[in-house]
Amino acid sequence: MPRPDASNERRSPKWQARRQAIIDTSAPLFAQRGYHATGIAELCEANDLGKGALYHYIGSKEELLAAIHDRVMDEVLLGAERVTEAGGTPPEQLAMLGDELLSVIHRYPDHVWVFLHEFPALTGDRADKFRERRRLYEEAVEAVLRAGVTSGDFRDLDPWLTARAWLGMHNYTYLWLKAGGRLSARDVAKPFADIFMQGIAKPKKKR
Amino acid sequence: MPRPDASNERRSPKWQARRQAIIDTSAPLFAQRGYHATGIAELCEANDLGKGALYHYIGSKEELLAAIHDRVMDEVLLGAERVTEAGGTPPEQLAMLGDELLSVIHRYPDHVWVFLHEFPALTGDRADKFRERRRLYEEAVEAVLRAGVTSGDFRDLDPWLTARAWLGMHNYTYLWLKAGGRLSARDVAKPFADIFMQGIAKPKKKR
Repeated sequence: MPRPDASNERRSPKWQARRQAIIDTSAPLFAQRGYHATGIAELCEANDLGKGALYHYIGSKEELLAAIHDRVMDEVLLGAERVTEAGGTPPEQLAMLGDELLSVIHRYPDHVWVFLHEFPALTGDRADKFRERRRLYEEAVEAVLRAGVTSGDFRDLDPWLTARAWLGMHNYTYLWLKAGGRLSARDVAKPFADIFMQGIAKPKKKR
Repeated sequence: MPRPDASNERRSPKWQARRQAIIDTSAPLFAQRGYHATGIAELCEANDLGKGALYHYIGSKEELLAAIHDRVMDEVLLGAERVTEAGGTPPEQLAMLGDELLSVIHRYPDHVWVFLHEFPALTGDRADKFRERRRLYEEAVEAVLRAGVTSGDFRDLDPWLTARAWLGMHNYTYLWLKAGGRLSARDVAKPFADIFMQGIAKPKKKR
């Protein structure tokens, strides 16, 4: 998995923890007000830090935005790795991917909101890295779909387009799937997997 | 269908057309930069209007945002009305709803971007009206799902949750379904309908 901030790994655990806390405190600000409209002054106030101290941890406002994206992407890619390691049939793999994705959305509503709304604000290398990691995840979904076509579990389908249908169905839950809400991630993952799996299943041959 | 700007209907056709042009010119600005970060000065420049003239047509920045939302909602609700009038079985109705929705997304990418990203910036009556109209559309989708369960076309399902799966799958195409792109709205609507319809179909009884 590409690591976003290799240079930060040399920092102390205390620095790392403080930086992570700043990322998590800032995500709701960006989510509520928007990235461009949120000023450094508001970030300083929310994090109870002076400007110099804030920059010491985050480098720049855009690096903070990239770090929020990485927080989501780290979790999502880790989930995909767990699914690959777990093995199983393509339908089982796709159901597990759905569980993992909805769990991230459920646990990080503000980060995911920022992730899905503010990615166009990333520029240069940060935009490239984000696109590369997102593409890595999309390819993991497409690979499971392709494997299912090969195994005969799924009917002949367009993996790219079908992955987008699956991603839309799952990602879009960020609007209403909230920690502490009526529905758990699992409450949603199961019926969604039922719809999608039956929807792409290869019809059984009559014997 | 609730009309958002009844008071504007008394205005001249020329005023209406100019206002509509301002709405359509401003949508890409909000889409690119975000609502909060886009100033009146930028809106004036993009529309080649002075501040007074701009306010004459749009009333306020928030009213402009509401008008962009209404532009999308008008089209989406008109599409739903056409589907109701067309009649047909619940699976046919749901397929037509998908056609209509993807057509709006394909034709109004910037408006839809603003619609999906900036709705939390609407306040008071405008927020209420937006929520009411969005709910109206969601209820149209849920009604078709319920009708399909009653008719025996769809298996027993949770209409609310299933509508969200359907809406996510379709709405989320705004990220990659673009006018002039590789895929037409119809290229996407058909395979999406295939997945969803097979996914919620009631298994045929063996005879």
